[in-house]
Amino acid sequence: MSLITATTRAALEELLETALRPAPDNWLKIRFGSELIGHVQPDYIPTIEAYIEQAETPALVRFGDHLQLENLPPFLLSQLLQDLAEFLKNHQAAPGWRNEHFSWLDAMGHERFRMERAAFRSLGFHSRACHINGYTAHQEIYLGLRSNSKATDPNMLDNLAAGGISADETLQQCVIRELWEEAGVPLNIARLVQPIGHIHVRRIVEPKGLHDESLYTYDLLLPDDFTPQNNDGEVSEFIKVPFSQAANLILEGALTPDAAAVTAEFLLRKA
Amino acid sequence: MSLITATTRAALEELLETALRPAPDNWLKIRFGSELIGHVQPDYIPTIEAYIEQAETPALVRFGDHLQLENLPPFLLSQLLQDLAEFLKNHQAAPGWRNEHFSWLDAMGHERFRMERAAFRSLGFHSRACHINGYTAHQEIYLGLRSNSKATDPNMLDNLAAGGISADETLQQCVIRELWEEAGVPLNIARLVQPIGHIHVRRIVEPKGLHDESLYTYDLLLPDDFTPQNNDGEVSEFIKVPFSQAANLILEGALTPDAAAVTAEFLLRKA
Repeated sequence: MSLITATTRAALEELLETALRPAPDNWLKIRFGSELIGHVQPDYIPTIEAYIEQAETPALVRFGDHLQLENLPPFLLSQLLQDLAEFLKNHQAAPGWRNEHFSWLDAMGHERFRMERAAFRSLGFHSRACHINGYTAHQEIYLGLRSNSKATDPNMLDNLAAGGISADETLQQCVIRELWEEAGVPLNIARLVQPIGHIHVRRIVEPKGLHDESLYTYDLLLPDDFTPQNNDGEVSEFIKVPFSQAANLILEGALTPDAAAVTAEFLLRKA
Repeated sequence: MSLITATTRAALEELLETALRPAPDNWLKIRFGSELIGHVQPDYIPTIEAYIEQAETPALVRFGDHLQLENLPPFLLSQLLQDLAEFLKNHQAAPGWRNEHFSWLDAMGHERFRMERAAFRSLGFHSRACHINGYTAHQEIYLGLRSNSKATDPNMLDNLAAGGISADETLQQCVIRELWEEAGVPLNIARLVQPIGHIHVRRIVEPKGLHDESLYTYDLLLPDDFTPQNNDGEVSEFIKVPFSQAANLILEGALTPDAAAVTAEFLLRKA
């Protein structure tokens, strides 16, 4: 018998189906070759135009009704994009600066550029993150309460561990690192992590930018004698709730939108 | 005007089209879930059966007409597969042992297991490599002569740099490492490398195994004052030949099959 009602199940399914939203029509498109890869909100367009005006070699050029990303060797393009990112930061158009680089991969898996992760949102570029569902043999799931100092979604519930995949990091390295930093999971437990799939999400985030991310999902069955403990100050406490209560918390809006999608997908499989 | 004749062009196109061959029908299939992921040549089947017999928890089980790979957390499955690899090695069924791990990625990009690279061929698992076409502004391409001590394809011509992508390595890390190890290309030149695409090759290799690999291709325009120099003993010398001569060397069979495919694709674009 399912641990959640048919109505709850339908609500979780709908939440998952609406996690990937289109970018608004009036945002400026960015293309790489003929591929649509980014979107800039109207408020930032004058800043981008000022950058193109002043840069000797700009990473982006205005081309008809869109911006065109130059097809340069990734190392050179990354240098230009990092200059653009710094310019955006200096003009208050790259909120949540982290001093951490994300890579942008093309459809074949080649890294085509890397840049400060905060600027990925300003330009609406696709990024990647890992999310781990930590659960117990007693149909309970762990959720972490994000600390009130986090730049995005403070005081909201998140997965056991979750985080962006940095440039020069494989998925598996990211999972092991985040499990340790965010939840104190040692390698002898972390090595039981099971890959599941990925969920593509896209939505506007405040301060205005486009969050377009593949969430790589994992399940981790935690032994009864293990209690997660945060190591990096990003989580203030962990709660352990029955699957049915986790579903209610999702539907009440207590989870970050990404954790809501990842947890909903988990509950639809397990509850 | 093209630097190669229409006949040569047609021959290079055919070489590329036939680079991906099916596994022989009489080889034993390996499945992971319902996906076909490996093939074992008939001579190795008794060794695999002996491994299944003696292992307490085998990585593979016989299931009807095929072998089924267990769907375990990647770290645990990797341990079992490494035991299998060692067993194959001890029974002369994993030639070319390298003490280097390859990762196997599923269609979504999750690492599902890793194992000694030599055993990937014994089991016909899909692997990944990077290949870099080094060329000059004068329509010349560099080819490396593989040293006579290489386990595979000794004394054959190869790309400027090429090599398997190790577990815990991103494509870009592999490219930079191979360019330095194999051809002494410093970072200030290596950073001009341009990603192109990938070529999927599959063929039987002697001693008998199945080479099933995605070759991630890159172009690198080398300045006139740079001469490649091997650092790891895997290349005995480099030659620099006009594009038209490179095409002839391919058609004469002087290149390794992988380098032939990568160079053919390059010449079809550039010559």
